[in-house]
Amino acid sequence: MNNKSDSYDEQEITLKNPNLDNLEVDYLYHLGLHSGMDLEKMFGDTKYVCMGGSADRALVFANKAAEILGIEVPEDGFQPIGKTERFSMYKVGPVVSVNHGMGIGSIEILLNEVAKLMAYAKAKGVKFFRLGTSGGIGVEPGTVVITDKAYNDRLEPYHDKSVCGEVEKRNTELSPELAQAIFDCREDISAAIGSTVSATGFYEPQGRLDGAIAYHTEEQKLAWLRKASGMGVKNMEMEATEFAAFCNELGIRSSIICAALLNRLDGDQVTSTPEELAQFADNSQQVVLNYIKKDLG
Amino acid sequence: MNNKSDSYDEQEITLKNPNLDNLEVDYLYHLGLHSGMDLEKMFGDTKYVCMGGSADRALVFANKAAEILGIEVPEDGFQPIGKTERFSMYKVGPVVSVNHGMGIGSIEILLNEVAKLMAYAKAKGVKFFRLGTSGGIGVEPGTVVITDKAYNDRLEPYHDKSVCGEVEKRNTELSPELAQAIFDCREDISAAIGSTVSATGFYEPQGRLDGAIAYHTEEQKLAWLRKASGMGVKNMEMEATEFAAFCNELGIRSSIICAALLNRLDGDQVTSTPEELAQFADNSQQVVLNYIKKDLG
Repeated sequence: MNNKSDSYDEQEITLKNPNLDNLEVDYLYHLGLHSGMDLEKMFGDTKYVCMGGSADRALVFANKAAEILGIEVPEDGFQPIGKTERFSMYKVGPVVSVNHGMGIGSIEILLNEVAKLMAYAKAKGVKFFRLGTSGGIGVEPGTVVITDKAYNDRLEPYHDKSVCGEVEKRNTELSPELAQAIFDCREDISAAIGSTVSATGFYEPQGRLDGAIAYHTEEQKLAWLRKASGMGVKNMEMEATEFAAFCNELGIRSSIICAALLNRLDGDQVTSTPEELAQFADNSQQVVLNYIKKDLG
Repeated sequence: MNNKSDSYDEQEITLKNPNLDNLEVDYLYHLGLHSGMDLEKMFGDTKYVCMGGSADRALVFANKAAEILGIEVPEDGFQPIGKTERFSMYKVGPVVSVNHGMGIGSIEILLNEVAKLMAYAKAKGVKFFRLGTSGGIGVEPGTVVITDKAYNDRLEPYHDKSVCGEVEKRNTELSPELAQAIFDCREDISAAIGSTVSATGFYEPQGRLDGAIAYHTEEQKLAWLRKASGMGVKNMEMEATEFAAFCNELGIRSSIICAALLNRLDGDQVTSTPEELAQFADNSQQVVLNYIKKDLG
Protein backbone atom coordinates (compact mmCIF):
# COMPACT_ATOMS: atom_id res chain seq x y z
CA MET A 1 0.00 0.00 0.00
CA ASN A 2 2.62 2.54 1.03
CA ASN A 3 5.42 1.98 -1.41
CA LYS A 4 6.73 4.10 -4.25
CA SER A 5 4.52 2.57 -6.94
CA ASP A 6 1.38 3.60 -5.03
CA SER A 7 -0.91 5.94 -7.01
CA TYR A 8 -1.60 7.85 -3.77
CA ASP A 9 1.87 9.34 -4.10
CA GLU A 10 0.76 11.24 -7.21
CA GLN A 11 -2.53 12.52 -5.83
CA GLU A 12 -3.17 16.04 -4.64
CA ILE A 13 -5.64 16.68 -1.78
CA THR A 14 -9.15 17.28 -3.13
CA LEU A 15 -11.01 19.73 -0.92
CA LYS A 16 -14.71 19.04 -0.39
CA ASN A 17 -16.05 22.54 -0.60
CA PRO A 18 -17.26 23.96 -3.93
CA ASN A 19 -17.56 27.45 -2.39
CA LEU A 20 -13.78 27.86 -2.29
CA ASP A 21 -13.76 28.29 -6.08
CA ASN A 22 -15.60 31.58 -5.60
CA LEU A 23 -12.97 33.10 -3.28
CA GLU A 24 -10.57 35.44 -5.01
CA VAL A 25 -8.09 35.01 -2.18
CA ASP A 26 -8.49 32.48 0.65
CA TYR A 27 -7.10 33.78 3.94
CA LEU A 28 -5.78 30.97 6.12
CA TYR A 29 -6.40 33.24 9.06
CA HIS A 30 -4.80 31.27 11.92
CA LEU A 31 -1.72 30.38 9.86
CA GLY A 32 -1.16 33.93 8.63
CA LEU A 33 -0.92 32.74 5.01
CA HIS A 34 -3.19 33.20 1.99
CA SER A 35 -3.76 31.70 -1.43
CA GLY A 36 -2.35 34.79 -3.16
CA MET A 37 1.16 33.75 -2.02
CA ASP A 38 3.31 31.36 -4.05
CA LEU A 39 2.31 28.42 -1.87
CA GLU A 40 3.37 25.94 -4.54
CA LYS A 41 6.93 27.17 -4.28
CA MET A 42 6.80 27.30 -0.48
CA PHE A 43 5.05 23.97 0.21
CA GLY A 44 4.70 22.07 -3.10
CA ASP A 45 7.23 19.36 -2.17
CA THR A 46 5.64 18.52 1.20
CA LYS A 47 5.09 14.79 1.81
CA TYR A 48 4.39 14.65 5.55
CA VAL A 49 2.50 17.05 7.80
CA CYS A 50 3.44 16.23 11.39
CA MET A 51 1.28 17.83 14.07
CA GLY A 52 2.06 17.91 17.76
CA GLY A 53 0.61 19.66 20.77
CA SER A 54 2.94 22.53 21.57
CA ALA A 55 4.99 25.04 19.55
CA ASP A 56 8.14 24.05 21.45
CA ARG A 57 7.71 20.44 20.45
CA ALA A 58 7.10 21.39 16.81
CA LEU A 59 10.54 23.01 16.72
CA VAL A 60 12.18 20.07 18.49
CA PHE A 61 10.63 17.78 15.88
CA ALA A 62 11.84 20.00 13.02
CA ASN A 63 15.42 19.80 14.26
CA LYS A 64 15.17 16.08 14.83
CA ALA A 65 13.75 15.57 11.33
CA ALA A 66 16.67 17.53 9.88
CA GLU A 67 19.12 15.36 11.78
CA ILE A 68 17.58 12.03 10.80
CA LEU A 69 16.86 12.95 7.18
CA GLY A 70 20.27 14.60 6.72
CA ILE A 71 18.90 18.06 5.98
CA GLU A 72 21.03 21.08 6.80
CA VAL A 73 19.79 23.36 9.57
CA PRO A 74 19.86 27.05 8.50
CA GLU A 75 22.53 29.13 10.20
CA ASP A 76 19.99 30.98 12.34
CA GLY A 77 17.93 27.84 12.97
CA PHE A 78 14.55 26.92 11.53
CA GLN A 79 12.21 29.92 11.48
CA PRO A 80 8.42 29.62 11.71
CA ILE A 81 6.47 30.29 8.50
CA GLY A 82 3.42 32.57 8.71
CA LYS A 83 2.24 33.99 12.00
CA THR A 84 2.92 32.31 15.34
CA GLU A 85 0.15 33.70 17.53
CA ARG A 86 -1.85 30.46 17.30
CA PHE A 87 0.30 27.87 15.54
CA SER A 88 4.04 27.64 14.80
CA MET A 89 4.86 25.93 11.51
CA TYR A 90 8.29 24.79 10.33
CA LYS A 91 9.31 23.22 7.04
CA VAL A 92 12.21 20.77 6.81
CA GLY A 93 12.52 19.34 3.30
CA PRO A 94 9.45 17.15 2.72
CA VAL A 95 8.31 17.53 6.34
CA VAL A 96 6.02 20.21 7.77
CA SER A 97 6.12 20.34 11.57
CA VAL A 98 3.36 22.33 13.25
CA ASN A 99 1.61 22.41 16.62
CA HIS A 100 -2.14 21.92 16.92
CA GLY A 101 -2.81 23.13 20.46
CA MET A 102 -5.03 21.14 22.81
CA GLY A 103 -8.42 19.67 22.06
CA ILE A 104 -10.79 19.07 19.19
CA GLY A 105 -11.57 22.75 18.60
CA SER A 106 -7.96 23.73 18.22
CA ILE A 107 -6.92 20.87 15.90
CA GLU A 108 -10.06 21.42 13.80
CA ILE A 109 -8.77 24.86 12.88
CA LEU A 110 -5.30 23.61 12.02
CA LEU A 111 -6.58 20.66 9.98
CA ASN A 112 -8.83 22.82 7.84
CA GLU A 113 -6.17 25.43 7.15
CA VAL A 114 -3.28 23.02 6.60
CA ALA A 115 -5.36 20.85 4.23
CA LYS A 116 -6.26 23.93 2.19
CA LEU A 117 -2.59 24.96 2.28
CA MET A 118 -1.49 21.57 0.91
CA ALA A 119 -4.20 21.64 -1.77
CA TYR A 120 -3.26 25.15 -2.92
CA ALA A 121 0.42 24.12 -2.89
CA LYS A 122 -0.45 21.13 -5.14
CA ALA A 123 1.52 18.88 -2.82
CA LYS A 124 1.22 15.21 -3.86
CA GLY A 125 0.77 12.10 -1.73
CA VAL A 126 0.80 14.02 1.54
CA LYS A 127 0.31 12.03 4.74
CA PHE A 128 -0.87 13.60 7.99
CA PHE A 129 0.51 12.43 11.32
CA ARG A 130 -0.55 13.46 14.79
CA LEU A 131 2.28 12.93 17.27
CA GLY A 132 1.66 13.55 20.88
CA THR A 133 1.31 12.43 24.41
CA SER A 134 -1.61 10.70 26.05
CA GLY A 135 -2.81 8.86 29.11
CA GLY A 136 -2.16 5.15 28.69
CA ILE A 137 -4.79 2.56 29.58
CA GLY A 138 -3.19 -0.71 30.59
CA VAL A 139 0.17 0.16 29.03
CA GLU A 140 3.42 1.22 30.69
CA PRO A 141 4.43 4.91 30.71
CA GLY A 142 6.56 5.59 27.64
CA THR A 143 4.74 3.12 25.37
CA VAL A 144 4.00 4.53 21.92
CA VAL A 145 0.41 3.79 20.92
CA ILE A 146 -0.46 3.80 17.20
CA THR A 147 -4.20 4.31 16.79
CA ASP A 148 -6.36 1.90 14.78
CA LYS A 149 -9.66 3.59 15.61
CA ALA A 150 -10.78 6.61 17.66
CA TYR A 151 -13.70 6.61 20.10
CA ASN A 152 -15.45 9.63 21.58
CA ASP A 153 -15.71 9.94 25.39
CA ARG A 154 -19.02 8.09 25.40
CA LEU A 155 -17.00 5.21 23.94
CA GLU A 156 -18.76 5.41 20.57
CA PRO A 157 -16.59 4.65 17.49
CA TYR A 158 -17.29 7.82 15.51
CA HIS A 159 -16.92 11.61 15.59
CA ASP A 160 -19.96 13.81 16.08
CA LYS A 161 -19.73 16.75 13.70
CA SER A 162 -22.31 19.42 14.39
CA VAL A 163 -23.11 21.55 11.33
CA CYS A 164 -25.90 24.14 11.37
CA GLY A 165 -27.64 22.32 14.17
CA GLU A 166 -27.50 18.84 12.60
CA VAL A 167 -25.13 16.25 14.06
CA GLU A 168 -23.41 13.90 11.61
CA LYS A 169 -21.48 10.77 12.66
CA ARG A 170 -18.13 10.55 10.86
CA ASN A 171 -15.82 7.60 10.44
CA THR A 172 -12.78 7.47 12.76
CA GLU A 173 -11.05 4.29 11.54
CA LEU A 174 -7.48 4.80 10.43
CA SER A 175 -5.48 2.89 7.80
CA PRO A 176 -4.38 -0.44 9.31
CA GLU A 177 -1.61 -0.74 6.67
CA LEU A 178 -0.10 2.61 7.61
CA ALA A 179 -0.40 1.84 11.35
CA GLN A 180 1.40 -1.47 10.80
CA ALA A 181 4.09 0.16 8.63
CA ILE A 182 4.78 2.68 11.42
CA PHE A 183 4.70 -0.02 14.09
CA ASP A 184 7.29 -1.93 12.06
CA CYS A 185 9.63 1.07 12.44
CA ARG A 186 9.55 1.06 16.25
CA GLU A 187 13.06 -0.49 16.56
CA ASP A 188 13.74 -0.83 20.31
CA ILE A 189 10.95 1.51 21.44
CA SER A 190 8.01 -0.09 23.23
CA ALA A 191 4.97 0.32 20.96
CA ALA A 192 1.47 -1.07 20.45
CA ILE A 193 -1.40 -0.71 17.97
CA GLY A 194 -4.70 -0.03 19.72
CA SER A 195 -7.74 2.18 19.93
CA THR A 196 -7.76 5.72 21.32
CA VAL A 197 -10.43 7.58 23.27
CA SER A 198 -10.62 11.26 22.41
CA ALA A 199 -12.18 13.20 25.27
CA THR A 200 -13.71 16.68 25.30
CA GLY A 201 -11.47 17.73 28.18
CA PHE A 202 -8.60 16.60 30.39
CA TYR A 203 -10.20 16.36 33.83
CA GLU A 204 -13.83 15.21 34.25
CA PRO A 205 -14.20 14.14 30.58
CA GLN A 206 -11.27 11.72 31.06
CA GLY A 207 -12.70 10.55 34.37
CA ARG A 208 -9.84 12.15 36.31
CA LEU A 209 -10.29 12.62 40.05
CA ASP A 210 -7.72 15.40 40.38
CA GLY A 211 -9.53 18.33 38.75
CA ALA A 212 -11.28 21.24 40.46
CA ILE A 213 -14.57 19.33 40.13
CA ALA A 214 -15.24 15.60 40.54
CA TYR A 215 -18.65 14.26 41.48
CA HIS A 216 -17.81 10.75 40.29
CA THR A 217 -15.95 8.08 42.25
CA GLU A 218 -12.78 6.05 41.82
CA GLU A 219 -14.99 3.00 41.21
CA GLN A 220 -16.92 4.71 38.39
CA LYS A 221 -13.67 5.88 36.83
CA LEU A 222 -12.07 2.45 36.92
CA ALA A 223 -15.21 0.73 35.61
CA TRP A 224 -15.23 3.15 32.66
CA LEU A 225 -11.51 2.80 31.94
CA ARG A 226 -11.76 -1.00 32.18
CA LYS A 227 -14.73 -1.00 29.84
CA ALA A 228 -12.65 1.00 27.35
CA SER A 229 -9.70 -1.33 27.84
CA GLY A 230 -11.96 -4.31 27.11
CA MET A 231 -12.90 -2.67 23.80
CA GLY A 232 -9.23 -2.50 22.76
CA VAL A 233 -8.55 1.05 23.92
CA LYS A 234 -4.90 1.63 24.86
CA ASN A 235 -4.79 5.38 25.40
CA MET A 236 -6.80 8.56 25.84
CA GLU A 237 -6.21 12.07 24.55
CA MET A 238 -8.18 15.01 23.17
CA GLU A 239 -7.85 15.19 19.36
CA ALA A 240 -8.04 11.74 17.76
CA THR A 241 -11.71 11.70 16.67
CA GLU A 242 -11.46 15.06 14.92
CA PHE A 243 -8.13 14.20 13.28
CA ALA A 244 -9.26 10.78 12.05
CA ALA A 245 -12.68 11.94 10.83
CA PHE A 246 -11.21 14.94 9.02
CA CYS A 247 -8.51 12.94 7.23
CA ASN A 248 -11.00 10.23 6.27
CA GLU A 249 -13.38 12.77 4.81
CA LEU A 250 -10.66 14.11 2.49
CA GLY A 251 -9.06 10.71 1.81
CA ILE A 252 -5.78 11.78 3.44
CA ARG A 253 -3.65 8.87 4.63
CA SER A 254 -3.02 9.48 8.27
CA SER A 255 -1.94 8.02 11.57
CA ILE A 256 -1.92 8.96 15.25
CA ILE A 257 1.19 8.11 17.23
CA CYS A 258 1.09 9.07 20.91
CA ALA A 259 3.29 8.15 23.82
CA ALA A 260 1.57 7.26 27.08
CA LEU A 261 2.72 9.54 29.95
CA LEU A 262 1.18 7.34 32.64
CA ASN A 263 -1.04 4.30 33.07
CA ARG A 264 -4.48 5.65 34.02
CA LEU A 265 -5.38 2.33 35.65
CA ASP A 266 -2.74 3.22 38.28
CA GLY A 267 -3.64 6.90 38.87
CA ASP A 268 -4.43 10.31 37.41
CA GLN A 269 -1.50 12.59 38.16
CA VAL A 270 1.38 13.02 35.75
CA THR A 271 4.32 12.57 38.12
CA SER A 272 7.18 11.47 35.86
CA THR A 273 10.21 13.74 35.87
CA PRO A 274 10.56 16.37 33.13
CA GLU A 275 13.41 14.25 31.71
CA GLU A 276 11.20 11.16 31.55
CA LEU A 277 8.35 13.12 29.97
CA ALA A 278 10.71 14.54 27.33
CA GLN A 279 11.91 11.00 26.60
CA PHE A 280 8.32 9.77 26.23
CA ALA A 281 7.48 12.57 23.75
CA ASP A 282 10.75 11.79 21.99
CA ASN A 283 9.71 8.14 21.56
CA SER A 284 6.71 8.99 19.37
CA GLN A 285 8.79 11.44 17.30
CA GLN A 286 11.51 8.82 16.81
CA VAL A 287 9.10 6.14 15.58
CA VAL A 288 7.54 8.52 13.06
CA LEU A 289 10.91 9.71 11.79
CA ASN A 290 12.09 6.12 11.42
CA TYR A 291 9.01 5.54 9.26
CA ILE A 292 9.50 8.72 7.19
CA LYS A 293 13.14 7.88 6.52
CA LYS A 294 12.18 4.40 5.32
CA ASP A 295 9.20 5.69 3.31
CA LEU A 296 11.39 8.22 1.49
CA GLY A 297 13.55 5.27 0.47
CA MET B 1 -23.99 43.16 44.00
CA ASN B 2 -20.40 43.99 43.11
CA ASN B 3 -19.43 46.62 45.62
CA LYS B 4 -16.96 46.54 48.47
CA SER B 5 -19.46 45.46 51.12
CA ASP B 6 -20.27 42.31 49.15
CA SER B 7 -19.59 39.10 51.11
CA TYR B 8 -18.33 37.50 47.88
CA ASP B 9 -15.20 39.62 48.26
CA GLU B 10 -14.25 37.65 51.37
CA GLN B 11 -14.90 34.20 49.96
CA GLU B 12 -12.27 31.78 48.78
CA ILE B 13 -13.01 29.39 45.91
CA THR B 14 -14.38 26.09 47.21
CA LEU B 15 -13.28 23.21 45.01
CA LYS B 16 -15.83 20.46 44.44
CA ASN B 17 -13.59 17.45 44.65
CA PRO B 18 -13.06 15.65 47.97
CA ASN B 19 -10.26 13.55 46.45
CA LEU B 20 -7.91 16.52 46.39
CA ASP B 21 -7.56 16.28 50.18
CA ASN B 22 -5.76 12.97 49.69
CA LEU B 23 -3.06 14.39 47.42
CA GLU B 24 0.19 15.17 49.18
CA VAL B 25 1.18 17.51 46.36
CA ASP B 26 -1.14 18.55 43.53
CA TYR B 27 0.74 19.05 40.26
CA LEU B 28 -0.91 21.69 38.09
CA TYR B 29 0.72 19.97 35.15
CA HIS B 30 -0.06 22.38 32.30
CA LEU B 31 0.79 25.45 34.39
CA GLY B 32 4.08 24.03 35.66
CA LEU B 33 3.16 24.84 39.27
CA HIS B 34 2.32 22.66 42.26
CA SER B 35 0.70 22.94 45.65
CA GLY B 36 4.04 22.48 47.43
CA MET B 37 5.06 25.99 46.33
CA ASP B 38 4.16 29.08 48.36
CA LEU B 39 1.16 29.82 46.14
CA GLU B 40 -0.41 32.03 48.82
CA LYS B 41 2.55 34.38 48.61
CA MET B 42 2.63 34.22 44.81
CA PHE B 43 -1.10 34.53 44.08
CA GLY B 44 -2.94 35.23 47.37
CA ASP B 45 -3.85 38.82 46.45
CA THR B 46 -5.39 37.95 43.07
CA LYS B 47 -8.82 39.48 42.42
CA TYR B 48 -9.26 38.98 38.68
CA VAL B 49 -8.22 36.12 36.43
CA CYS B 50 -8.37 37.38 32.85
CA MET B 51 -8.15 34.72 30.16
CA GLY B 52 -7.62 35.37 26.46
CA GLY B 53 -6.89 33.22 23.44
CA SER B 54 -3.20 33.68 22.70
CA ALA B 55 -0.01 34.05 24.74
CA ASP B 56 0.87 37.25 22.87
CA ARG B 57 -2.43 38.81 23.85
CA ALA B 58 -1.99 37.76 27.50
CA LEU B 59 1.22 39.80 27.63
CA VAL B 60 -0.37 42.76 25.87
CA PHE B 61 -3.17 42.66 28.45
CA ALA B 62 -0.68 42.47 31.32
CA ASN B 63 1.08 45.61 30.12
CA LYS B 64 -2.20 47.40 29.53
CA ALA B 65 -3.43 46.43 33.01
CA ALA B 66 -0.22 47.86 34.50
CA GLU B 67 -0.72 51.11 32.61
CA ILE B 68 -4.37 51.58 33.55
CA LEU B 69 -4.02 50.44 37.17
CA GLY B 70 -0.83 52.46 37.69
CA ILE B 71 1.36 49.43 38.43
CA GLU B 72 5.06 49.64 37.67
CA VAL B 73 6.36 47.37 34.89
CA PRO B 74 9.51 45.47 35.98
CA GLU B 75 12.70 46.63 34.31
CA ASP B 76 12.95 43.50 32.16
CA GLY B 77 9.19 43.44 31.50
CA PHE B 78 6.59 41.05 32.91
CA GLN B 79 7.88 37.47 32.93
CA PRO B 80 5.62 34.43 32.67
CA ILE B 81 5.09 32.42 35.85
CA GLY B 82 5.39 28.62 35.61
CA LYS B 83 5.99 26.89 32.32
CA THR B 84 4.98 28.38 28.98
CA GLU B 85 4.69 25.30 26.77
CA ARG B 86 0.89 25.35 26.95
CA PHE B 87 -0.17 28.54 28.73
CA SER B 88 1.64 31.81 29.51
CA MET B 89 0.59 33.41 32.79
CA TYR B 90 1.44 36.90 34.01
CA LYS B 91 0.62 38.59 37.30
CA VAL B 92 0.09 42.34 37.55
CA GLY B 93 -0.99 43.35 41.05
CA PRO B 94 -4.49 41.91 41.58
CA VAL B 95 -4.74 40.77 37.95
CA VAL B 96 -3.67 37.41 36.51
CA SER B 97 -3.47 37.46 32.72
CA VAL B 98 -3.24 34.07 31.01
CA ASN B 99 -4.07 32.57 27.63
CA HIS B 100 -6.48 29.67 27.27
CA GLY B 101 -5.78 28.49 23.73
CA MET B 102 -8.63 27.69 21.36
CA GLY B 103 -11.68 25.60 22.07
CA ILE B 104 -13.49 23.88 24.90
CA GLY B 105 -10.80 21.26 25.50
CA SER B 106 -8.04 23.80 25.94
CA ILE B 107 -9.94 26.18 28.23
CA GLU B 108 -11.18 23.21 30.32
CA ILE B 109 -7.59 22.47 31.26
CA LEU B 110 -6.80 26.07 32.16
CA LEU B 111 -10.01 26.54 34.16
CA ASN B 112 -9.40 23.46 36.29
CA GLU B 113 -5.79 24.32 37.03
CA VAL B 114 -6.28 28.04 37.59
CA ALA B 115 -9.25 27.43 39.93
CA LYS B 116 -7.14 25.01 41.97
CA LEU B 117 -4.33 27.56 41.93
CA MET B 118 -6.63 30.29 43.29
CA ALA B 119 -8.05 27.94 45.94
CA TYR B 120 -4.57 26.86 47.12
CA ALA B 121 -3.48 30.51 47.13
CA LYS B 122 -6.50 31.36 49.35
CA ALA B 123 -7.34 34.26 47.05
CA LYS B 124 -10.60 35.95 48.05
CA GLY B 125 -13.42 37.25 45.89
CA VAL B 126 -11.77 36.25 42.64
CA LYS B 127 -13.68 36.93 39.43
CA PHE B 128 -12.94 35.12 36.18
CA PHE B 129 -13.16 36.93 32.86
CA ARG B 130 -12.81 35.51 29.39
CA LEU B 131 -11.71 38.20 26.95
CA GLY B 132 -11.48 37.37 23.32
CA THR B 133 -12.57 37.69 19.77
CA SER B 134 -15.58 36.14 18.10
CA GLY B 135 -17.74 36.16 15.02
CA GLY B 136 -20.54 38.68 15.42
CA ILE B 137 -24.13 37.83 14.48
CA GLY B 138 -26.02 40.95 13.47
CA VAL B 139 -23.51 43.30 15.09
CA GLU B 140 -20.86 45.47 13.44
CA PRO B 141 -17.19 44.38 13.46
CA GLY B 142 -15.52 45.80 16.57
CA THR B 143 -18.61 45.57 18.80
CA VAL B 144 -17.85 44.17 22.25
CA VAL B 145 -20.41 41.52 23.21
CA ILE B 146 -20.91 40.75 26.91
CA THR B 147 -22.48 37.31 27.30
CA ASP B 148 -25.68 36.76 29.26
CA LYS B 149 -26.03 33.08 28.39
CA ALA B 150 -24.05 30.53 26.36
CA TYR B 151 -25.57 28.08 23.89
CA ASN B 152 -23.93 25.00 22.39
CA ASP B 153 -23.76 24.63 18.60
CA ARG B 154 -27.08 22.81 18.52
CA LEU B 155 -28.49 26.06 20.00
CA GLU B 156 -29.27 24.44 23.35
CA PRO B 157 -28.79 26.66 26.43
CA TYR B 158 -26.51 24.37 28.44
CA HIS B 159 -23.12 22.66 28.40
CA ASP B 160 -22.87 18.92 27.87
CA LYS B 161 -20.29 17.52 30.29
CA SER B 162 -19.39 13.93 29.58
CA VAL B 163 -18.06 12.10 32.64
CA CYS B 164 -17.35 8.36 32.59
CA GLY B 165 -19.79 7.88 29.74
CA GLU B 166 -22.67 9.84 31.31
CA VAL B 167 -23.58 13.23 29.87
CA GLU B 168 -24.69 15.94 32.31
CA LYS B 169 -26.29 19.24 31.27
CA ARG B 170 -24.70 22.17 33.09
CA ASN B 171 -25.98 25.70 33.51
CA THR B 172 -24.43 28.35 31.25
CA GLU B 173 -26.20 31.51 32.45
CA LEU B 174 -23.88 34.24 33.62
CA SER B 175 -24.44 36.94 36.25
CA PRO B 176 -26.66 39.65 34.73
CA GLU B 177 -25.48 42.14 37.39
CA LEU B 178 -21.82 41.64 36.50
CA ALA B 179 -22.59 41.81 32.75
CA GLN B 180 -24.43 45.10 33.31
CA ALA B 181 -21.64 46.50 35.50
CA ILE B 182 -19.10 45.75 32.76
CA PHE B 183 -21.40 47.14 30.06
CA ASP B 184 -21.66 50.34 32.11
CA CYS B 185 -17.86 50.72 31.77
CA ARG B 186 -17.87 50.67 27.96
CA GLU B 187 -17.32 54.47 27.68
CA ASP B 188 -17.19 55.26 23.93
CA ILE B 189 -16.69 51.66 22.80
CA SER B 190 -19.60 50.04 20.96
CA ALA B 191 -20.90 47.23 23.20
CA ALA B 192 -23.95 45.00 23.66
CA ILE B 193 -25.20 42.38 26.11
CA GLY B 194 -26.39 39.24 24.34
CA SER B 195 -26.13 35.48 24.09
CA THR B 196 -23.15 33.58 22.72
CA VAL B 197 -22.97 30.34 20.76
CA SER B 198 -19.98 28.22 21.64
CA ALA B 199 -19.13 25.89 18.77
CA THR B 200 -17.00 22.73 18.75
CA GLY B 201 -14.89 24.10 15.90
CA PHE B 202 -14.28 27.13 13.71
CA TYR B 203 -15.31 25.93 10.24
CA GLU B 204 -18.20 23.47 9.78
CA PRO B 205 -19.36 23.72 13.43
CA GLN B 206 -19.84 27.48 12.98
CA GLY B 207 -21.55 26.91 9.63
CA ARG B 208 -18.64 28.50 7.74
CA LEU B 209 -18.46 27.88 4.00
CA ASP B 210 -14.72 28.57 3.71
CA GLY B 211 -13.22 25.47 5.35
CA ALA B 212 -11.68 22.46 3.65
CA ILE B 213 -15.05 20.69 3.91
CA ALA B 214 -18.56 22.11 3.49
CA TYR B 215 -21.50 19.94 2.49
CA HIS B 216 -24.03 22.51 3.67
CA THR B 217 -25.30 25.51 1.72
CA GLU B 218 -25.33 29.29 2.16
CA GLU B 219 -29.11 29.04 2.74
CA GLN B 220 -28.70 26.47 5.54
CA LYS B 221 -26.00 28.59 7.14
CA LEU B 222 -28.03 31.79 7.06
CA ALA B 223 -31.17 30.04 8.32
CA TRP B 224 -29.17 28.71 11.28
CA LEU B 225 -27.48 32.05 12.04
CA ARG B 226 -30.83 33.86 11.78
CA LYS B 227 -32.44 31.33 14.10
CA ALA B 228 -29.66 32.00 16.61
CA SER B 229 -30.07 35.76 16.14
CA GLY B 230 -33.79 35.43 16.84
CA MET B 231 -32.94 33.74 20.15
CA GLY B 232 -30.86 36.74 21.22
CA VAL B 233 -27.47 35.43 20.10
CA LYS B 234 -25.03 38.20 19.21
CA ASN B 235 -21.80 36.30 18.67
CA MET B 236 -20.18 32.91 18.23
CA GLU B 237 -16.91 31.53 19.54
CA MET B 238 -15.48 28.29 20.92
CA GLU B 239 -15.20 28.44 24.74
CA ALA B 240 -18.25 30.12 26.32
CA THR B 241 -20.24 27.03 27.37
CA GLU B 242 -17.29 25.43 29.15
CA PHE B 243 -16.26 28.70 30.80
CA ALA B 244 -19.77 29.56 32.00
CA ALA B 245 -20.62 26.04 33.19
CA PHE B 246 -17.32 25.67 35.04
CA CYS B 247 -17.59 29.01 36.84
CA ASN B 248 -21.23 28.34 37.75
CA GLU B 249 -20.36 24.95 39.20
CA LEU B 250 -17.80 26.54 41.58
CA GLY B 251 -19.82 29.70 42.23
CA ILE B 252 -17.15 31.91 40.67
CA ARG B 253 -18.46 35.27 39.46
CA SER B 254 -17.57 35.49 35.84
CA SER B 255 -18.18 37.22 32.56
CA ILE B 256 -17.34 36.76 28.87
CA ILE B 257 -16.38 39.85 26.93
CA CYS B 258 -15.58 39.28 23.25
CA ALA B 259 -15.14 41.66 20.37
CA ALA B 260 -16.77 40.69 17.07
CA LEU B 261 -14.21 40.46 14.24
CA LEU B 262 -16.87 40.35 11.51
CA ASN B 263 -20.61 40.09 11.04
CA ARG B 264 -21.29 36.46 10.06
CA LEU B 265 -24.58 37.49 8.40
CA ASP B 266 -22.38 39.27 5.80
CA GLY B 267 -19.75 36.55 5.22
CA ASP B 268 -17.29 34.04 6.69
CA GLN B 269 -13.79 35.31 5.98
CA VAL B 270 -11.91 37.50 8.43
CA THR B 271 -10.71 40.25 6.09
CA SER B 272 -10.12 43.24 8.38
CA THR B 273 -6.58 44.58 8.43
CA PRO B 274 -4.19 43.47 11.19
CA GLU B 275 -4.49 47.00 12.63
CA GLU B 276 -8.29 46.78 12.75
CA LEU B 277 -8.17 43.30 14.29
CA ALA B 278 -5.74 44.53 16.96
CA GLN B 279 -8.09 47.43 17.69
CA PHE B 280 -11.06 45.03 18.03
CA ALA B 281 -9.16 42.83 20.51
CA ASP B 282 -8.09 45.99 22.29
CA ASN B 283 -11.73 47.06 22.69
CA SER B 284 -12.64 44.06 24.86
CA GLN B 285 -9.50 44.51 26.96
CA GLN B 286 -10.26 48.19 27.46
CA VAL B 287 -13.83 47.57 28.64
CA VAL B 288 -12.67 44.97 31.17
CA LEU B 289 -9.88 47.18 32.48
CA ASN B 290 -12.30 50.09 32.85
CA TYR B 291 -14.45 47.79 34.97
CA ILE B 292 -11.52 46.49 37.05
CA LYS B 293 -10.31 50.01 37.76
CA LYS B 294 -13.76 51.05 38.92
CA ASP B 295 -14.29 47.82 40.92
CA LEU B 296 -11.01 48.30 42.78
CA GLY B 297 -12.34 51.72 43.79
